[in-house]
Amino acid sequence: MRNAEATQERILQAAMAEFSAHGIAGARVDRIATAAGCNKNLIYIYFESKEALFTTVLEKNLLRVYEDLPFTPEDLPGYATRVFDFAMTNPDLMRLIAWSSLEQKVDSPAARTAAHDMKVAALAQAQADGLAGPVFPPAFLLTAVMTLATAWTATNPFGPSVDPESARNPAELRECVAAAVELISDARLTED
Amino acid sequence: MRNAEATQERILQAAMAEFSAHGIAGARVDRIATAAGCNKNLIYIYFESKEALFTTVLEKNLLRVYEDLPFTPEDLPGYATRVFDFAMTNPDLMRLIAWSSLEQKVDSPAARTAAHDMKVAALAQAQADGLAGPVFPPAFLLTAVMTLATAWTATNPFGPSVDPESARNPAELRECVAAAVELISDARLTED
Repeated sequence: MRNAEATQERILQAAMAEFSAHGIAGARVDRIATAAGCNKNLIYIYFESKEALFTTVLEKNLLRVYEDLPFTPEDLPGYATRVFDFAMTNPDLMRLIAWSSLEQKVDSPAARTAAHDMKVAALAQAQADGLAGPVFPPAFLLTAVMTLATAWTATNPFGPSVDPESARNPAELRECVAAAVELISDARLTED
Repeated sequence: MRNAEATQERILQAAMAEFSAHGIAGARVDRIATAAGCNKNLIYIYFESKEALFTTVLEKNLLRVYEDLPFTPEDLPGYATRVFDFAMTNPDLMRLIAWSSLEQKVDSPAARTAAHDMKVAALAQAQADGLAGPVFPPAFLLTAVMTLATAWTATNPFGPSVDPESARNPAELRECVAAAVELISDARLTED
């Protein structure tokens, strides 16, 4: 039993590297098996299909993120800073999420949709309580914050992939992201 | 000669559809040849390789964008609105740009880097002339504007791909994007 768990863990780690580099269509189960040091058939027995393995890898990694990065709707600049730091130091997971959106062959993990909906609801409540600016709808604000906080990873088509110099100074970028998110999330309807 | 041009045009159109759907690794030159109604070898004669064909398709489409969407550093909300409208109505090209960033098998077309550098320079000049807020470095501001303006396309991992409802009302989104860009691009160092 202990052996089976260790093997599954090795498969998941090898799958993370393979999917991150090549996407779903480009990934080869043979290569995952070789890297994990196991029989290819074992992967199908444990995880059913290449697509199901991808979803499992993505979901397990996202669950870790949800634990490590608490959402603070009353402090969106702080949240954006934590997402920025996480995204810049976890390019593999950022690539996994990007492949997931682009390939359209797998559903978004249920946990991801649930986490998103909970954040939107928490943000709406913070706005109702006067803890976040009321100008933008909560779903708009959340997408804007997540998108800005991850814009300097290599997976954003308008970030370092077109301008490699732009990610040279993460400390300065982090401050700019926080300031931009503050401008958006503090916006009030009244001119003041 | 006229025939050759017409064939090349058919190949480019078929390649756009194939690359947009499947990316570079997933695209099949056979399918492009079948869709274009030509011999597969002709594609290699005209365009050298699958990768070179991808870069040609991307570059031709981007050159059209640069002509259709003039950059107005003194009016970033207006520019963001035009980019938003373009991105929402051209999902194929958005996907092509996203594959290009993610697959790392092809260089960014030279025209793309040149257009980016020209925009950053124009934005720096607008800031020096007091026509755009001076708080953010021009390269940061440009990436932020492009990223926000394209955040509700299906290729953004934090947009409609996690929350399909979020792109239901493009007219409202367009206004929100313009308002968010105005907040960022009008920001002054002084509190007022």
